[in-house]
Amino acid sequence: MESVAVIGASMTQFGQRDAWIRELLAEAGQACLDDAGVSPDAIDHLYVSNMASGEFEGQTGVPNALAHDLSALPAYTARIDQTSSSGGAGIYAAWQSVASGASEMTLLVGGEKMTHRTTAEATDVIASLTHPAEYKHGVTLPSFAGLTARLYLDTYDAPRESLGKVAVKNHKNGVDNPHAQFRKEVDLDTVLDSPIVADPLRLYDFCPITDGSAALMLCPESVAREYTDEYVVISGIGGATDTHVVHERADPTTMGGVVNSSEQAYEMADLEPDDIDVAELHDMFTILEFLQSEDLGFFEKGEGWKAVEEGVTDRDGDLPINTSGGLKSKGHPLGASGVAQAYEIYAQLMGEAGDRQVEAQTGLACNVGGFGNCVTTTIMEARR
Amino acid sequence: MESVAVIGASMTQFGQRDAWIRELLAEAGQACLDDAGVSPDAIDHLYVSNMASGEFEGQTGVPNALAHDLSALPAYTARIDQTSSSGGAGIYAAWQSVASGASEMTLLVGGEKMTHRTTAEATDVIASLTHPAEYKHGVTLPSFAGLTARLYLDTYDAPRESLGKVAVKNHKNGVDNPHAQFRKEVDLDTVLDSPIVADPLRLYDFCPITDGSAALMLCPESVAREYTDEYVVISGIGGATDTHVVHERADPTTMGGVVNSSEQAYEMADLEPDDIDVAELHDMFTILEFLQSEDLGFFEKGEGWKAVEEGVTDRDGDLPINTSGGLKSKGHPLGASGVAQAYEIYAQLMGEAGDRQVEAQTGLACNVGGFGNCVTTTIMEARR
Repeated sequence: MESVAVIGASMTQFGQRDAWIRELLAEAGQACLDDAGVSPDAIDHLYVSNMASGEFEGQTGVPNALAHDLSALPAYTARIDQTSSSGGAGIYAAWQSVASGASEMTLLVGGEKMTHRTTAEATDVIASLTHPAEYKHGVTLPSFAGLTARLYLDTYDAPRESLGKVAVKNHKNGVDNPHAQFRKEVDLDTVLDSPIVADPLRLYDFCPITDGSAALMLCPESVAREYTDEYVVISGIGGATDTHVVHERADPTTMGGVVNSSEQAYEMADLEPDDIDVAELHDMFTILEFLQSEDLGFFEKGEGWKAVEEGVTDRDGDLPINTSGGLKSKGHPLGASGVAQAYEIYAQLMGEAGDRQVEAQTGLACNVGGFGNCVTTTIMEARR
Repeated sequence: MESVAVIGASMTQFGQRDAWIRELLAEAGQACLDDAGVSPDAIDHLYVSNMASGEFEGQTGVPNALAHDLSALPAYTARIDQTSSSGGAGIYAAWQSVASGASEMTLLVGGEKMTHRTTAEATDVIASLTHPAEYKHGVTLPSFAGLTARLYLDTYDAPRESLGKVAVKNHKNGVDNPHAQFRKEVDLDTVLDSPIVADPLRLYDFCPITDGSAALMLCPESVAREYTDEYVVISGIGGATDTHVVHERADPTTMGGVVNSSEQAYEMADLEPDDIDVAELHDMFTILEFLQSEDLGFFEKGEGWKAVEEGVTDRDGDLPINTSGGLKSKGHPLGASGVAQAYEIYAQLMGEAGDRQVEAQTGLACNVGGFGNCVTTTIMEARR
């Protein structure tokens, strides 16, 4: 089967935006058309990754609105929702549309508009993905993060400071990302002294509420070559669920969806974790970067925190993680985040990452829905 | 490329159900596993067609809940939303998952829980798919239907009674569908004397608000043969948009999405409209059955009403349309409807349609999102 290529990518400014979901999607979509040099007439399929435009804005049918706004009619459209991993699920849908032969040119745009709602309201919309038995007891994703962080620190004798160092690293990376919501460094004391949210996690262990969107242009490799000599291929992709009820997991410090989805992606790409040069992980909470870096096979179980302490995952380390700044400093507009992860990998592989640039031929993006409820992993390789 | 087969199908009782979306999805999903004789362990991908569980019930993440409830972990899951054509979009997504090689066994479950909300509330959720400029002026889909019906009757010199005969026919068919919401015949006078909703359309020109779900099991044809000697293949499928703003259409009596999506499906299946033996059309409003029957190429433009008058689309006619009772009498749980259309075609092609059975080797389902904003057309053929 022919490989699926990515020939263009974009992301908008993330943060508090004075724009509705339709405008945010159109902004990234148009920028991606421009980046790829593709006419809207050429679009066969147009997917929108978005969790909750209806709940956040009372607006549904946004894929059709976007097809209109980009002059892409009569391109087929649909919305892909997999809660906080809607972006990764959108990449999988877009990949399938091309790999199945249904589309020769697929535009994927992920986005969310959230900041017009209070943090409590937004957190409640997100918490509605939990099991009803959990939800009615007031469980939210931050509360799971606190419990899991405590278990991890206890089980693996990790110091609390190591979690803080994830925030410090990702904020440092975010300074060089012009699209990031927070472009400011934070020091370890600031993180450790910030207000408690879910013990032992504090404010700076959490990603913000964010507006924004991002986009990718996918097509068969043979079509890609008609547009450009330099592009990226999706050489591996996979998706998997873990239990809906978090307490049913044998070991809550292992994310089964990350393990299973990455095994699929590695097998398809015929690669090992050691072959990955750069990775974007779903650091919605600092603890999640440890779990994913282990469950993806980058580090032994319980050793992820040491990699951060030793600088392995710094921009100049052996395996830079979250060069974009991660969800932590870049922001987390739900449906956009997985697409923006792929945007960062694309930019790194194409040599277009500016001050964030690292040496990389192969990159990986891991997008986590819920508290690991459903995960997609995407491996991309440069073709230059 | 290998054909994609359907080896099992199910639908729940449609109507006012004392069950939430999770329960409805699990009911159809389990019935489909049983019908196909497939173990939940065998499921690679699990898609949920659903427009608005968040808006209707405050519950999101239902695909992960369903994977849990069916013991299908770690199957990959996502929700597919294309408003009232979410079911058809789900079929397209499920087809792509198999055709791309990503999944060897895909379960699609479409469902919606609506009747706990008032008709006004439900209509407002649906209307949120319209263009904001339309929505703020109070436009709803029924209002578009009234305007279009008047234009059609005027343009093609069709009698008002012909619209009523669609309702009479579909209610008659629904009597023999044990899953239908309304299993009662209505006579033409009852339709024509029912309360006006959007002139010239009256109560019996509209489908009801409904709870329910439906499911399909898809796999490559080679895998299908490991399970059964009798199955159905999806020989053609396509999807297309029309303008988001209805008044921008050159001719509002033509649904461009139906024309474009069916052209794709016919070409892929190498079939002509004349080759179709039975069809399920999206009769959310009676007028839509006329438009689709013409835009699918079954009848000349402006002649669809005559086919109904002459009994061509009756169960014993040359081209039976909506043998299930259609959305009109079967009900219209948004995310379920497109899947339930395919369920009816599957049952007809497999010879399992009971008292509704017609002679058919090839069938077509046309699922319309919004007011023709996005449409999917699926052609299925029996392999027995």
